[in-house]
Amino acid sequence: MAKVAIMGYGTVGSGVYDIIKMNSAKLAKSADEEIEVKYILDIRDFPDHPEKHLFTKDVNDIINDSEISVVSEVMGGLHPAYEFTKQLLESGKSVVTSNKELVATYGSDLLAIAKEKNVNYMFEASVGGGIPVIRPLSRCLCANNIIKIAGILNGTTNYILYQMITNNKSFDTALKDAQANGYAERNPAADIEGHDACRKIAILASLASGTEVDYSKISTEGITAITLDDVKCAGASDYVIKLIGYAEFLKNGKVYAHVAPMLIDKKNMLSGIDDVMNGVLVTGDAVGEVMFYGPGAGKLPTASAVVADIVDSVIHRTARKGMAWIKADEDNTAPADEMKFRYFIRADKSTGDAAAVFGNVTELCGISETETAFITSPLTYAEAETLTAQLGGVKTAIRVLD
Amino acid sequence: MAKVAIMGYGTVGSGVYDIIKMNSAKLAKSADEEIEVKYILDIRDFPDHPEKHLFTKDVNDIINDSEISVVSEVMGGLHPAYEFTKQLLESGKSVVTSNKELVATYGSDLLAIAKEKNVNYMFEASVGGGIPVIRPLSRCLCANNIIKIAGILNGTTNYILYQMITNNKSFDTALKDAQANGYAERNPAADIEGHDACRKIAILASLASGTEVDYSKISTEGITAITLDDVKCAGASDYVIKLIGYAEFLKNGKVYAHVAPMLIDKKNMLSGIDDVMNGVLVTGDAVGEVMFYGPGAGKLPTASAVVADIVDSVIHRTARKGMAWIKADEDNTAPADEMKFRYFIRADKSTGDAAAVFGNVTELCGISETETAFITSPLTYAEAETLTAQLGGVKTAIRVLD
Repeated sequence: MAKVAIMGYGTVGSGVYDIIKMNSAKLAKSADEEIEVKYILDIRDFPDHPEKHLFTKDVNDIINDSEISVVSEVMGGLHPAYEFTKQLLESGKSVVTSNKELVATYGSDLLAIAKEKNVNYMFEASVGGGIPVIRPLSRCLCANNIIKIAGILNGTTNYILYQMITNNKSFDTALKDAQANGYAERNPAADIEGHDACRKIAILASLASGTEVDYSKISTEGITAITLDDVKCAGASDYVIKLIGYAEFLKNGKVYAHVAPMLIDKKNMLSGIDDVMNGVLVTGDAVGEVMFYGPGAGKLPTASAVVADIVDSVIHRTARKGMAWIKADEDNTAPADEMKFRYFIRADKSTGDAAAVFGNVTELCGISETETAFITSPLTYAEAETLTAQLGGVKTAIRVLD
Repeated sequence: MAKVAIMGYGTVGSGVYDIIKMNSAKLAKSADEEIEVKYILDIRDFPDHPEKHLFTKDVNDIINDSEISVVSEVMGGLHPAYEFTKQLLESGKSVVTSNKELVATYGSDLLAIAKEKNVNYMFEASVGGGIPVIRPLSRCLCANNIIKIAGILNGTTNYILYQMITNNKSFDTALKDAQANGYAERNPAADIEGHDACRKIAILASLASGTEVDYSKISTEGITAITLDDVKCAGASDYVIKLIGYAEFLKNGKVYAHVAPMLIDKKNMLSGIDDVMNGVLVTGDAVGEVMFYGPGAGKLPTASAVVADIVDSVIHRTARKGMAWIKADEDNTAPADEMKFRYFIRADKSTGDAAAVFGNVTELCGISETETAFITSPLTYAEAETLTAQLGGVKTAIRVLD
């Protein structure tokens, strides 16, 4: 019998509790022993809960209980989640988490403590919700040098773009719709400005490179500037626009990463990821391209990943899993100027001649007679800035995912 | 330093060797020690190989060498692969394999021996080539009761159907094309008649249920009866036809499985899996739907999965991983008559009235004025047989993937 604790009884925490109750037979089979929740930590009271005796407001009850070997931290936020996790790892307990902000910010520290104490710090649920991605990337693709990761990592923005693409909604209407459906917060900034996706691509890039990729150094752009005209113009030429967390692993050991809306060919598997779903496309030097797809958020899907980590931690109570990275000794991020992307550009026809300014371009269908739309040859960010200024009348310039 | 052996130096075996050489630094990092090939077993001679001293024709060289802890069996076929694997496991060595026929046929036996000897028998490469699917299904989704698996598990048939769908080729032309491109064998029966996909869905179903699903009891139908007209008719109504390995896990503990061409809505992620690619859609009771996509065959992709298993076996030399199933005490397969599917039917218009015979039907675009095409309500296999006979003039009746 393995006794575990849940810290935070919000959406994910109650999902973790529900799965442990609902699928107890399956979990016992997977872990080779029964799993039981002994504590639930929350500052709130739950007087009507069927197991209200499990609740505590004091993390020391968990830290000081030698029966507890695995704790799931599903509180969210940096503090006190960081302090609690640190104390738990230091006291020799494994911690599993869905907290992407904590993993992206303090992951290196916490993974180092876990290593020192020979316990596990696992975070399958921190990226892609219920989609298996951390373990597959780290273990199943371990024979590969990872070349590239491109992911739809945020369900809210994917829902908004999908509504624009499919139902001709404006960004504002689609956002209100997302809020009405519970897919977007009242303050949607963390999602629509790309900060959520930024934490997630930082985690994937750190894991793939083995060295922390500092999320604060990742150029992050949201979808607030994307218009219905952009989406229509892309669609008319068999492309879609998606918010992409992108990372490329250079031969010199540096990592380039960004979060930005990108133009995606409808032949690319990522283009078919609709609604609130997520997907991560990984390119390895041996395997080529693989993709992991599924629900990137939600109570039971996210809890499914947290509970899988609980089971794995129970199995590995005396052995550490190698899903980890270390702090970088020096700046390991590649500057944008070293990278080239093709650009999708929409501009007024009157202001200049695209071919004269950009050289070889691929013409796309414009959405009106007064505008031109095209895809450039690969350019650095600086080159694209210079040339778009030179052309004039540019409404949109976003990178193409190749 | 972990010393390993490769049995079989064909396409996959040479890929395993190449990856171990090419990505040695990455592997050393993942396994926490260096990995070196000490033996390659093959009945042929390779006098020009740069490490020709590694080759042996005698499996006892490997069995009797206590330095060897992990062996990759990539010979294919049942014999002598079975005997070699058994001897190796019994001598306390872990074995990893890409041999789907062996895993589907003798998996239960070999997994039992591995358990008894506290070593690992791993088979990530046996399904989906390089796609991470065995480990994700077994470990990352372990908090779920698996409800359903539907997979495009054979690249050859997917290539043929894709050529029919996209390039209007007949089945025969598409098959010749596949043979010319090296995607189909000169004798293509194992692929086009569904036997390859049958082994793979048997492995996935066994793993998901924890009990062997006997592949010889899986109703298996290939794609030889699918015509260009079927494909065109499906396409005109926004469907595609794909060869699907299907398994459903019933509440009574039984497993229903089949391999057959199925009609798939273009909104389903499996519909977008083109060319020789594979994909596996898994439905769990907590996570909902997730999909794993990538190259289902090929030298380096398949070897990527084999080498990942080598690394995992090196890490777990003293601990066993729980990716296994046991032999069924009694017949655990659900008969087709307990299952209902909607059917896609094409028939001559002259012979009968679809609605009168089948009740509620969804009309599809026929491809000519003389024919009718429709989707029925859910029916058992027996009901579908009776009603199609009653209607008369039926050219095609295939199940719909819902």
